[in-house]
Amino acid sequence: MSCVFCAIVAGEAPAIRIHEDDDQLAILDIRPFTRGHTLVIPKIHTVDLTDTPARTLAGMAALGQRIAKAARLSGLHADGNNIAINDGKAAFQTVFHIHLHVVPRRDGDKLSFAKGVLMRRDPDREETGRLLREALAKVDTAEKD
Amino acid sequence: MSCVFCAIVAGEAPAIRIHEDDDQLAILDIRPFTRGHTLVIPKIHTVDLTDTPARTLAGMAALGQRIAKAARLSGLHADGNNIAINDGKAAFQTVFHIHLHVVPRRDGDKLSFAKGVLMRRDPDREETGRLLREALAKVDTAEKD
Ligand SMILES: [Zn+2]
Ligand SMILES: [Zn+2]
Repeated sequence: MSCVFCAIVAGEAPAIRIHEDDDQLAILDIRPFTRGHTLVIPKIHTVDLTDTPARTLAGMAALGQRIAKAARLSGLHADGNNIAINDGKAAFQTVFHIHLHVVPRRDGDKLSFAKGVLMRRDPDREETGRLLREALAKVDTAEKD
Repeated sequence: MSCVFCAIVAGEAPAIRIHEDDDQLAILDIRPFTRGHTLVIPKIHTVDLTDTPARTLAGMAALGQRIAKAARLSGLHADGNNIAINDGKAAFQTVFHIHLHVVPRRDGDKLSFAKGVLMRRDPDREETGRLLREALAKVDTAEKD
């Protein structure tokens, strides 16, 4: 399979999953800018904003928002998040299966953020995944109330 | 009025409008990273992803996608776009009325993009606005067919 995200969706490549439902998957970025850097990936392969249905994009935005809220609530103690879609090679897209980035940020983290963009590693990915899954369950419970 | 985006929505502050409907506005960023850098702004004031309804966010994503498609079709000849929401001061949010950035990109523009991030000016904002409005009308017509 030539698309790494399709392989992850199919369970044929490993990933630390934050969320999965019928339509999409959220996984930790293997080269994170910050701790908790997550990718929201629709299960059906499309490339970028030119071929992705508006309905799919709405689902990505909704899950991205829930993960952003979870990052703030979580043991990662985020104070904010950068949400981004790189639409096309010209815009730094490197995997050509559309995805939305959620990059948790903390107050005053500009230097560690810059270092993270260069280093791109998480010393404890399993724990990061656990913290985000736990907080996402809280966000979803709160929204059902 | 203390919120500059609420003032623009109310017609009390100037902006070059790309799109307006009942729920949202799209305007050129006054300090653009690239030519055509556009902001999608919901008309009802909310701050960030913690207080913005999911439905509002879905509308922002949908309009952002249409503008991204328009930038590619337009006389700006974009080859891609960076789409971003800076959720919170920690994430570089500077106007505390939620907004989505659409930053048109061109193949091989890394240096001019970096220069644009420092300079943040457009030598012909009126023409940029005209090109995007014209292309957005084409995108919307194509999607109705
Ligand atoms: Zn794929
Ligand atoms: Zn406002």
